[in-house]
Amino acid sequence: MITGKNYIGNTLSNKGTKTYKTFNPKSNEVNEHQFYEATEEEINQAAQLATEAFSVFSQASGEKRAEFLNAIADEILALDTKLIETYMSESGLPEGRAIGERGRTIFQLRMFAVLVKNDQWREPKLDASDYDRKPIPKPDLRKMLIPIGPVVVFGASNFPLAYSTAGGDTASALAAGCPVIVKSHPMHAGTGELVSSAIIKAAKKTGMPNGVFSNINSSGIKVGEQLVMHPQVKAVGFTGSIYGGRALYNLAATRKEPIPVFAEMGSINPVIITQKSLETRASEIATTYSKSITLGAGQFCTNPGLLLAIESDELTSFISDLGEKTIAQDPQCMLHPNIKNSFVNKGDTVTNEAETKIVAEYKNTTSANYAGAKIVTVSGDTFLSNTYLHQEVFGPFSMVVQCKNEAQLLEIISKLEGQLTGTILAEKEEYSQLGKLVQTLQNRVGRIIFNGAPTGVEVCDAMTHGGPYPASTDSRFTAVGNGSILRWVRPFSYQDFPEELLPEILKN
Amino acid sequence: MITGKNYIGNTLSNKGTKTYKTFNPKSNEVNEHQFYEATEEEINQAAQLATEAFSVFSQASGEKRAEFLNAIADEILALDTKLIETYMSESGLPEGRAIGERGRTIFQLRMFAVLVKNDQWREPKLDASDYDRKPIPKPDLRKMLIPIGPVVVFGASNFPLAYSTAGGDTASALAAGCPVIVKSHPMHAGTGELVSSAIIKAAKKTGMPNGVFSNINSSGIKVGEQLVMHPQVKAVGFTGSIYGGRALYNLAATRKEPIPVFAEMGSINPVIITQKSLETRASEIATTYSKSITLGAGQFCTNPGLLLAIESDELTSFISDLGEKTIAQDPQCMLHPNIKNSFVNKGDTVTNEAETKIVAEYKNTTSANYAGAKIVTVSGDTFLSNTYLHQEVFGPFSMVVQCKNEAQLLEIISKLEGQLTGTILAEKEEYSQLGKLVQTLQNRVGRIIFNGAPTGVEVCDAMTHGGPYPASTDSRFTAVGNGSILRWVRPFSYQDFPEELLPEILKN
Repeated sequence: MITGKNYIGNTLSNKGTKTYKTFNPKSNEVNEHQFYEATEEEINQAAQLATEAFSVFSQASGEKRAEFLNAIADEILALDTKLIETYMSESGLPEGRAIGERGRTIFQLRMFAVLVKNDQWREPKLDASDYDRKPIPKPDLRKMLIPIGPVVVFGASNFPLAYSTAGGDTASALAAGCPVIVKSHPMHAGTGELVSSAIIKAAKKTGMPNGVFSNINSSGIKVGEQLVMHPQVKAVGFTGSIYGGRALYNLAATRKEPIPVFAEMGSINPVIITQKSLETRASEIATTYSKSITLGAGQFCTNPGLLLAIESDELTSFISDLGEKTIAQDPQCMLHPNIKNSFVNKGDTVTNEAETKIVAEYKNTTSANYAGAKIVTVSGDTFLSNTYLHQEVFGPFSMVVQCKNEAQLLEIISKLEGQLTGTILAEKEEYSQLGKLVQTLQNRVGRIIFNGAPTGVEVCDAMTHGGPYPASTDSRFTAVGNGSILRWVRPFSYQDFPEELLPEILKN
Repeated sequence: MITGKNYIGNTLSNKGTKTYKTFNPKSNEVNEHQFYEATEEEINQAAQLATEAFSVFSQASGEKRAEFLNAIADEILALDTKLIETYMSESGLPEGRAIGERGRTIFQLRMFAVLVKNDQWREPKLDASDYDRKPIPKPDLRKMLIPIGPVVVFGASNFPLAYSTAGGDTASALAAGCPVIVKSHPMHAGTGELVSSAIIKAAKKTGMPNGVFSNINSSGIKVGEQLVMHPQVKAVGFTGSIYGGRALYNLAATRKEPIPVFAEMGSINPVIITQKSLETRASEIATTYSKSITLGAGQFCTNPGLLLAIESDELTSFISDLGEKTIAQDPQCMLHPNIKNSFVNKGDTVTNEAETKIVAEYKNTTSANYAGAKIVTVSGDTFLSNTYLHQEVFGPFSMVVQCKNEAQLLEIISKLEGQLTGTILAEKEEYSQLGKLVQTLQNRVGRIIFNGAPTGVEVCDAMTHGGPYPASTDSRFTAVGNGSILRWVRPFSYQDFPEELLPEILKN
């Protein structure tokens, strides 16, 4: 049941009068439910409850938190077709994707449940005392990671489940012992409320304190700003645009007590193709990338928006082959008319820049909000001199840069902004000569993929999803995988503690 | 030999005309050497050299970096009495302290050498591939920590060696593979140049690239600002005042590419004394704390500036005993006339606040720049209502707060700003009832000490020196111990990498 209300802790609440609705981009119609924008009073209540919940929740055993996370997964599954239908009606994404993303969400919750079941993830360290040491006795010191406090999570437009209400940020923060206040994404407020109801049910069933989770509705920016500025909030997770993420980061830096903001933002995910690979398997690469570029209407943060190679006849043929294959892919529905418009406008302004050339562009009429792909090309000189071309065009779009030579290719890479990923397509016999390329690319990205496509972010221990700014606002952390829990914790040391007051994992 | 010049990489450089001198607070005289403030050109050169050095230094083996760190330690020792004399003449600190701090500096360098000799500190993670997985193949993923880029280090006034030129920040950044540009502290520019010469010698001897280290002189704030804003600088370490640290943090947040600023700043390090401890060993506590409060003229970031207890006759006697014992300690020379003035002024303004009472104050005449101790007391009500009293008075000063009851004690703790440390003095039979106190205190500090004094920061694996703001600008890291290396690194993932291009530690 979707009520349109906020969850202020366990309580459904609609104190405000401002309402909004979500939109079905596939049918091009407004959805039925009405959502109530949270008031300042409701925000304050959620923050106060979260603070109170923190004192209990932060002390709960890992087993209890694991139970909670698993219960959330169970309750999300129990929402069954209602969730899948709502997801589809608010995102325009197909059923297969909805089910896949739900699976990923469940997987993340259960992965963190396994991680925190025992306290090894807290990186316990023990330094034995030496009270006879001269000139100063050495104390007994023990250390482990403890939760930082209430966390605000901003969900992503492009992942209504896996990077939103109960997505990676929420799962990792709850796993760490931090209460979460979600600022629900306005494009999928219904999906958000359903998932929130599952979290609240799970919290009640497993005896979690009221306030361990709240869900705040809003279609504007003010509510988000109030949450980030709230003195009881101790960290922020965000997935979305550079514009939005940077605004929150800037705001948090003005607080009396600044707090960490981990924003995972835009990326054009450069792909470097060697001449040898073009000679060996240009057609296969074009096929793979025509699919990667158009996957999910190109609405992935790891979408390959930039292909780099050195000019040659093989590159010329590859570009036209890639263009043909890409626009041969069926157009897909984008998440929202605003996103479709932004895709069209950005794509147009980029191709209106001098010396960019459209290789291929989907020309047939599409249903409203469906996006036809576009491939453009540009010389290395032009790309270097016009940084406007370095920006992300969110959607099924990619730019092939024809570099003069290897030196220019390396120069271009070194001048890119920070990226989530970089990809190298190369042949076995070249590997030994790729050191310089790998190093140059490594400086600009969080992950390098060899002979694959950047779309697809495995949820595992060895994943880094983040990177130098603006891929993320803090490259020292990942937003995906076990390591993402480290965003919400801090080291704490116990000096000469009585055994009975030490946490279990730090006892002798 | 002190030249007064900057080290721009390996080159002594004095392109500017602005000069300054250091001051000997003990003799109350200006020291002889003249130091040349760095110019913008010199800053740019240092940053450019650091960037170039990064591409080589970041790839150097752990063994090579360990060799470099050990060579720095050797070269610092080789400076012998020249270093000790210069240190003393620029800080007013006694010889024993100079030798002790040099020992700590050497120890830190060698500790990081041991840590990075092999690559286990990079936290290598391997996730095996499963290319047959349905619906999507699982790639091979491997991850480890890599250095973030050139780091700027601002040295501390109160630790000319251990938290300055080759102190913990520099040692941990170099250990991580990050070139370092030190903004030399103007109060001990001579000490800084000597230590810099040792680092440069060690860099040359061990074949490190030019630019792996630079030392920038300045007596004002502009040079520091230019360094923090320099696009080639990727992180900042700072030890000092809240005012200074916050200014740099704010500045870095305005960069096009924001960078992490780890500032370790002020703290009043609350000490809680239970009624039972006062009944059992008040006199012993007064003796211990009279020494802790006056140690090094109270110029430690972990100085106990705030004692909290519940009002009682025993507390009343303890306060007067503590006062007498504290002012019975010999006054010691402070680091600089400015620091002495600030101590006197801050101490006066705090005691001029209504309802604070001076318990004891050193009254005899002292040599210039020597500081006599001061103990004041205040009621819990007054302390709660006047947050002005929560500020740090840097020097031999402490305030005893007489709380009405346990509830008020807990309320006061929960309303304190973030602190480096908290200390609990309690008796064995009370331990089981201390859970609430420990938890409340834990929320506000980075380390809790049981039945000891906060002064003394052990350099080890289990140390946390940091804490909620304003103890530090990022509580997720420690400034002391092995863990401090984590400030200068980021996770990086290798997906489906050819074996020959993987770093050794990630190979099969």
